[in-house]
Amino acid sequence: MEPYNGLMEKAKDLLTLQSTTAIVYWDLETKMPPRGIQLRSQQLALLQKIGHRMLTDPEIGKLIDAIRSHKDYDSLDQLQKRNVHLAKKEYDEATKLPEELVVETARQTAMAVDGWKKAKAAKDWEMFKPDLQKVYDLRKRAADILMDVKGTPTRYDALIDLFEPGMTSETISRIFSRMREGLVEIMDKVKDAPRQPNASFLSRKVPLETQRNIADAMAEVIGYDVKSDQAGGRIDETEHPFTTGYFDDVRITTHYYEERFESSVFSVLHEGGHAIYEQGLPHEWMFQPVGAGASSGIHESQSRFVENMFGRSPEFWGYFFPKLNKLTGGVLSDVELGKFVHAINKVEPSKIRVEADEVTYGLHIIIRFEIEKELFADRLTVDELPQVWNEKYREYLGVEIENDSEGVMQDTHWAGGAFGYFPSYALGNIYGGQMLEKMTVEIPDYKDYISKGSFKEIKSWLEDNVHKYGNLYDPADLIKVITGDELRIEPFLTYLDDKYSKLYGY
Amino acid sequence: MEPYNGLMEKAKDLLTLQSTTAIVYWDLETKMPPRGIQLRSQQLALLQKIGHRMLTDPEIGKLIDAIRSHKDYDSLDQLQKRNVHLAKKEYDEATKLPEELVVETARQTAMAVDGWKKAKAAKDWEMFKPDLQKVYDLRKRAADILMDVKGTPTRYDALIDLFEPGMTSETISRIFSRMREGLVEIMDKVKDAPRQPNASFLSRKVPLETQRNIADAMAEVIGYDVKSDQAGGRIDETEHPFTTGYFDDVRITTHYYEERFESSVFSVLHEGGHAIYEQGLPHEWMFQPVGAGASSGIHESQSRFVENMFGRSPEFWGYFFPKLNKLTGGVLSDVELGKFVHAINKVEPSKIRVEADEVTYGLHIIIRFEIEKELFADRLTVDELPQVWNEKYREYLGVEIENDSEGVMQDTHWAGGAFGYFPSYALGNIYGGQMLEKMTVEIPDYKDYISKGSFKEIKSWLEDNVHKYGNLYDPADLIKVITGDELRIEPFLTYLDDKYSKLYGY
Repeated sequence: MEPYNGLMEKAKDLLTLQSTTAIVYWDLETKMPPRGIQLRSQQLALLQKIGHRMLTDPEIGKLIDAIRSHKDYDSLDQLQKRNVHLAKKEYDEATKLPEELVVETARQTAMAVDGWKKAKAAKDWEMFKPDLQKVYDLRKRAADILMDVKGTPTRYDALIDLFEPGMTSETISRIFSRMREGLVEIMDKVKDAPRQPNASFLSRKVPLETQRNIADAMAEVIGYDVKSDQAGGRIDETEHPFTTGYFDDVRITTHYYEERFESSVFSVLHEGGHAIYEQGLPHEWMFQPVGAGASSGIHESQSRFVENMFGRSPEFWGYFFPKLNKLTGGVLSDVELGKFVHAINKVEPSKIRVEADEVTYGLHIIIRFEIEKELFADRLTVDELPQVWNEKYREYLGVEIENDSEGVMQDTHWAGGAFGYFPSYALGNIYGGQMLEKMTVEIPDYKDYISKGSFKEIKSWLEDNVHKYGNLYDPADLIKVITGDELRIEPFLTYLDDKYSKLYGY
Repeated sequence: MEPYNGLMEKAKDLLTLQSTTAIVYWDLETKMPPRGIQLRSQQLALLQKIGHRMLTDPEIGKLIDAIRSHKDYDSLDQLQKRNVHLAKKEYDEATKLPEELVVETARQTAMAVDGWKKAKAAKDWEMFKPDLQKVYDLRKRAADILMDVKGTPTRYDALIDLFEPGMTSETISRIFSRMREGLVEIMDKVKDAPRQPNASFLSRKVPLETQRNIADAMAEVIGYDVKSDQAGGRIDETEHPFTTGYFDDVRITTHYYEERFESSVFSVLHEGGHAIYEQGLPHEWMFQPVGAGASSGIHESQSRFVENMFGRSPEFWGYFFPKLNKLTGGVLSDVELGKFVHAINKVEPSKIRVEADEVTYGLHIIIRFEIEKELFADRLTVDELPQVWNEKYREYLGVEIENDSEGVMQDTHWAGGAFGYFPSYALGNIYGGQMLEKMTVEIPDYKDYISKGSFKEIKSWLEDNVHKYGNLYDPADLIKVITGDELRIEPFLTYLDDKYSKLYGY
């Protein structure tokens, strides 16, 4: 069908441009000399403008109409129809956003991310606030428009839908409330448990060069190639780890702390989980809308599956702990394996989301979700953020925030305009729990493979059950296809309770 | 004037896009994982397509016409008129070349560069010839069209004008013929001179990590900031060194050879010379056509000034040699300063242009210029290139080419379609000679500054006399503005004779 081919040509250009923008953004974060920031924001704004013009090209609207009213429309297969659906959704959203708003948002978020870094280093909320206010105002304008286009009940739902298509704040509220109950219950059992971990040896110094070798070894374990002459990835250093890229060039970053070597170990596994998802998408879908991850939450399910369910398991460390000791020249040679595994799974309410354990992590997300919801319902102002933040941390996690760098300014998301993203992290855990439940049925002895240091059986299962579907389904439908079930919190809570009861002996 | 502002808006987008492409290309050369090459060529092709459309936007033609026929045209100042002139020139050239020819040339040169690498490795001219023939045919078609647009006397002149605006092959022939005489005279004096250098100690091993520190030190000496939190540059590694970027983000590359440490020293000074030119352009001209280097030749004058006139001077090494010994842990501590300076200035007729010394370098260029001129006048065929090449090397440099990889296939320029570029290299030396002569009048004690390791007086002079003019003048006019003179070969020959008579004691 000719208009379909025409639409796919347009999609190819757009996806190629987006993959180019990803490289330019990656460079900003990893390699760009400091003085380049002004020019870089101009470049990103221009790419955004070009992308927006390509995306809103009236020709696309005509092609979509021609396809949908075509006599052979019904002969399109599921994949082709999904491509048309995704293209139409993107087109409808984009044509409603004024170019001036899109360009200004690109420019302002680039500046605000830069400003956030400086303000965070200076622990100065007042320095960051004006930038954040501008970004918030721009996103609110966009949310108002998107709410109309998408027909979501609130403007915050419209933002959530950008990352988690079809998900609503109401569903999230409902499942998060059950999650909170379950997590608090486990937290309480852990607190009173007979076995308590000692994690002090995790702060032993490991030189950065050694940590780089450990990072490479982790990448190798999970089959993320950053070294060979067929490598399709690389590992660099940024303040805040992330993954970016497209198919044959997907890059991750990490942060090495001399006295917290495990931080980078789990960052690399986490980001590596994102990377192998991207690289596990069907290659023949490259340059088609369907050739992408299903949602941010599904993406997080993959990164957390690799980081936590695989990477923090006793079985994996049974295999890797001797290797770790070899790589570090025996820095933990006096530590028992069991004590090490307990230490890297220590449950402790804390201030920093990215350092949180699997049990308390969800509470960090609930705080952000509640704040965003109020903020976009105009029941909270940017001005009030630090105060509300600190109160919620006291109430939910029992910790006192002493300065805003370890509080409201800890994450880059808001500076980058990614309001509505945070729920995806917790949804990722929930999806992952359901996937694990299913995988356990299909590979009952999967822990034996992990014990041997073999990740490839799990990787194959993820490829065959998650990656291969790309963006063929909205996340809720995908979970149904994979597991046969609706969204359920129980598998994730069962996984946690099972794991922590063994570690803590409660 | 409204149409002028409109034109400058268009220019800004185009220059921003070009600076973005530069980053994407830099990444391809320095950081991209190997598997990314297919995607990267799609990305670069798309950027090129977008750039060509922006460049040939009929709106630009209308704006230019509106400006030139505007009642207030005469009230535009010199800078504004130059911006209009440069925009018009670029627009006229781009719109006259059929898109089919542009696309086919991009495709064919990419293939030919790839084919050149393979043929060079295989030392097989017959393998390369068909590719080169196609590139030559395409460039000849373009040259025929450009000759009409530009009104140049020959089609080769039209190609030269792309790199050296306003320069003609007749002028180049005249000055090259005098240059040849002068260079041969110096070569002869050097050959029979009493003092001959021994350069064997230059092949002593210097670890790559040490060489990186030396590179940083070189950058620091010339005020090219790659380290501070206000840095606007960086140094990476590639097979062939290059400089790329725009204003506040200008990057250089180098290649470290363990047993040829001086190679990287002079690469960094050379590329650093390009970089400080880019960064010395008036910042308020950013995103305007006039905010660019004046020509390839003027650019080469700056890189060679820093590399040779400063970087290979006895005065500089009087300052830096002890530091070099410190950085290398005394790898040359048994070598006298004078012997070292003589070694890095050794004159020796050779086969490879990029390894040539300051005296013989020009002869390599004359050979290429003469060949290109004949080739585009249809007095020479692609078939005959190796034979003519080898004959000229025998005649001009007295060396026997044993295979075409060290002969006609040594450079990438022709495969890449850059016919007409080579003269710029030698013109850079000639311009540089005139600049040095002028600077010597204005800073008579400039060598004293160099002896103290201070480059900043020279840098200021270059900024005030070269950089600050950006692309306000065609190169011949710029030289007149800087020195008050026409193009003259004598200053360059005087500089060489003075330097080498002292080194060789003739």
